[in-house]
This record gives sequence, structure tokens and C-alpha cells, in this order.
Amino acid sequence: MTRILYDLAAADPNFRFSPYCWRIKLALAHKNLTYETVPWRFTDKDVIAFSGQDKVPVLVDDGITIHDSQAIAEYLETAYPHEASLFGDPPSRALTRFIKFWAEDTLHRTIAPIVMPDIFKILDPKDQPYFRRTREAMIGMTIEELAAKRDSFLPLFHAALQPLRHTLAAQPFIAGAITSYADHIAWGALKWATMTSSTPLLADDDPIIPWMQAILDTYGL
Amino acid sequence: MTRILYDLAAADPNFRFSPYCWRIKLALAHKNLTYETVPWRFTDKDVIAFSGQDKVPVLVDDGITIHDSQAIAEYLETAYPHEASLFGDPPSRALTRFIKFWAEDTLHRTIAPIVMPDIFKILDPKDQPYFRRTREAMIGMTIEELAAKRDSFLPLFHAALQPLRHTLAAQPFIAGAITSYADHIAWGALKWATMTSSTPLLADDDPIIPWMQAILDTYGL
Repeated sequence: MTRILYDLAAADPNFRFSPYCWRIKLALAHKNLTYETVPWRFTDKDVIAFSGQDKVPVLVDDGITIHDSQAIAEYLETAYPHEASLFGDPPSRALTRFIKFWAEDTLHRTIAPIVMPDIFKILDPKDQPYFRRTREAMIGMTIEELAAKRDSFLPLFHAALQPLRHTLAAQPFIAGAITSYADHIAWGALKWATMTSSTPLLADDDPIIPWMQAILDTYGL
Repeated sequence: MTRILYDLAAADPNFRFSPYCWRIKLALAHKNLTYETVPWRFTDKDVIAFSGQDKVPVLVDDGITIHDSQAIAEYLETAYPHEASLFGDPPSRALTRFIKFWAEDTLHRTIAPIVMPDIFKILDPKDQPYFRRTREAMIGMTIEELAAKRDSFLPLFHAALQPLRHTLAAQPFIAGAITSYADHIAWGALKWATMTSSTPLLADDDPIIPWMQAILDTYGL
């Protein structure tokens, strides 16, 4: 039985920064599943063409190919029902969908403008023209113009984190006493942000930091 | 058995706009509980002094006084366990706490600058100096200066709603198939916004609108 995850990498093949891939690495840990990763670059479209699309994460689980982080998480929940649940019962699963959209529509959008210029610098040179072209079209300015405004984006990032900070003041994890996919989603966003940022994004006493560590500790990572 | 809710009112005593009071009116409907409301103005501090503090909602349930919307919702859940649950099981309850903080830390903060000048105009004249003093201290500008910038706040409001819109495209209510306190929280925010705004805040085809109506329909309101 082989289990392979195609995982976005920088020029350094061991530097893995995709928030969507991080979700799945935590979800696999949550399900007690071992796996190997293949470092993948934005322009390695041919390498994952077998999945029928061109983005990671792609999971190949004993011959079954699944792409898209949400589809992979749902696959893992169904395929490994005897391991701890990622989502909990239907109401928790529905509420976790809100967390997913909050992360993508609100939190990621405050992180992207901060770290985009930092990520550009660490990418494999073959990925840089692709990244520049796609991201500059997305944001409507050059990466250098974005970098010049960096400090102006920090307050929005900190404001977007307030609901998470307040939640973690009331309970250890987003769904209460134990870790769940809701944590994996938010952790992925913050791992992406903090590992790529050229400056520290979280103050030493930010409650986000011990929560991030507690998740790693839960899975022995 | 009497059940009385002190409910924030404008100059028109039937115009009730507090998002926190709306949460509780929906929670009471969810629990199939009848109640009477007392219209209350910001400066009626003496009227609720018996609750030990000076803000609404205040619920008096057969002689038991509870204040603070979260404390009231938790009281109703405990006191009326045989009615439909507001929160669901512990993980859903924990996730609903995130919805509360998202509403207060993110959504309310995008609504307040839009509607504050509109609310000022409809308040009982006795409340206006209090409202002006407290809100201007909060926002660091006059209500008139805020009103002049109104249009600039609308994009932030619409951006903040994106996670809710995407969630409702996937499922009828925030916690899935049936209404819960998570809906009451978000509904309260949007009722506050839409009923006080001097301009329509939601486009006719906004998916928020049928969701708001579906909640009313659920409770026969």
C-alpha cells in the first residue's frame, strides 16, 4: 500500500508552504496515516496531469487519485471511518465548512498580499515567471509595488485573526476539546503565513502560537 | 409565569434594532418560548439596574434575571433542555463560539461605521447625546465625518459576508440542515444592518436574503 501526496515546494525541495497541502498533512496525521510526499513546483503541470487538473494537493491512496483539499479531506473521512473523525457529526461538519470559507475568503486574503513578495523570492527560478504573471493579474499591481505597501496590510491580518484569538481564549481548539479539520484549515493558513513571511507576523505572546504548537504536539509532529 | 425581555428601541418604541437582542428573540422562538418585550433606550440605565449592569438584552424568566446575550442563550439551553438545542453537541457548541466572535470581531465592525449615522437619526432624542459621545469616542471621529465616508465602508461589509454566502451555497443553514444559534447570531447582525441602513445593503439576488427569510419561516415569524 502506497500513499503519496504531491506537495507544493519552494526552490528548496524541503520548504513546503501551501496552506491547502498543510491541511491535508494534518488530516493524514489525524487519521494516523503514513504517507510520502513528492515536492512539486507550480510549473510541474505535467507531473500531476494524471489527476485531470493542475493544482496540488493531489493524493494517490493505493491507486485512488483525489485532488482538491476539501475533496481529499472528505475522502479520508469516508475511507478511514474507524480513525478519529475529521469533522464530527453533521452540524459540526457544516460549521467546519464556514471555517473553510472564513479561512479562504477572509484570512487568506489578508495573508496573501503580505507574503506574496516573500514567496516570489524563495521559489524555484522556473516557477517565478508563472507566479509573477498569475499573481500580478490577481492583484492588479506588480510584486514590487505590493512589497512597497507591505506594512499597510499587517493591521488587516491582525484584525482578521481576532475571532480565532477570542475562540482560543475560551477553549483549546476551534471545535472545543480536541483537534479537528477546523484547526487544520486555520493552522494551514497560519503556517503558510508565518513560514514564508520575511518578518515575524505574530508577537511572542500571541495566543495563536501555543495553539499551533498544541496541534503539532497532538500528532507528535 | 412571566418572561420579559428588555429590548433596545429607537424613538419609535416598536423599532427594535439591537443585534444582540435579535439573537435572543430568535433563540426564544427556537425554544418555543413566549415572552413580552419592554422597549428600552440606551439611557434607561435605571430601568435595568436590578440586573447589576447597564446593557440589554436582559431577560427576566419567572423571576430569574440574566444579562448578556451569550449568558442568556446558555441559560435557555440549560433551563429548557427538552426543546430543540440551540448549540448542538459540544463540538458544534465550540464552533458556534467561533461564529459569535466572527460576527462581533469582523462582521459587526464592518456594519457599525455604515449604520451608525443612520441609527443616530432614529434614536429617541434623549439617547442622542449618549450615543454621540460613546460612539465618537469609539471611532475617533464625529458621526458627521463618519457619514461622509459611508460609501467607503460598503466593500468591507460585502467582503466580510463572503464566508457566509459561500457557506449558504453549500447548505441551508450555518450548522447544516436546521437552524441553530449560529444562524441567530449572524441573522441578528444582518437584521441590525438592513433595518437601520438608509440605503439597501443587500442586492435583490443576494443569497443572504432567502436565508434570512427561511429563518423567519422556520419560527413562523
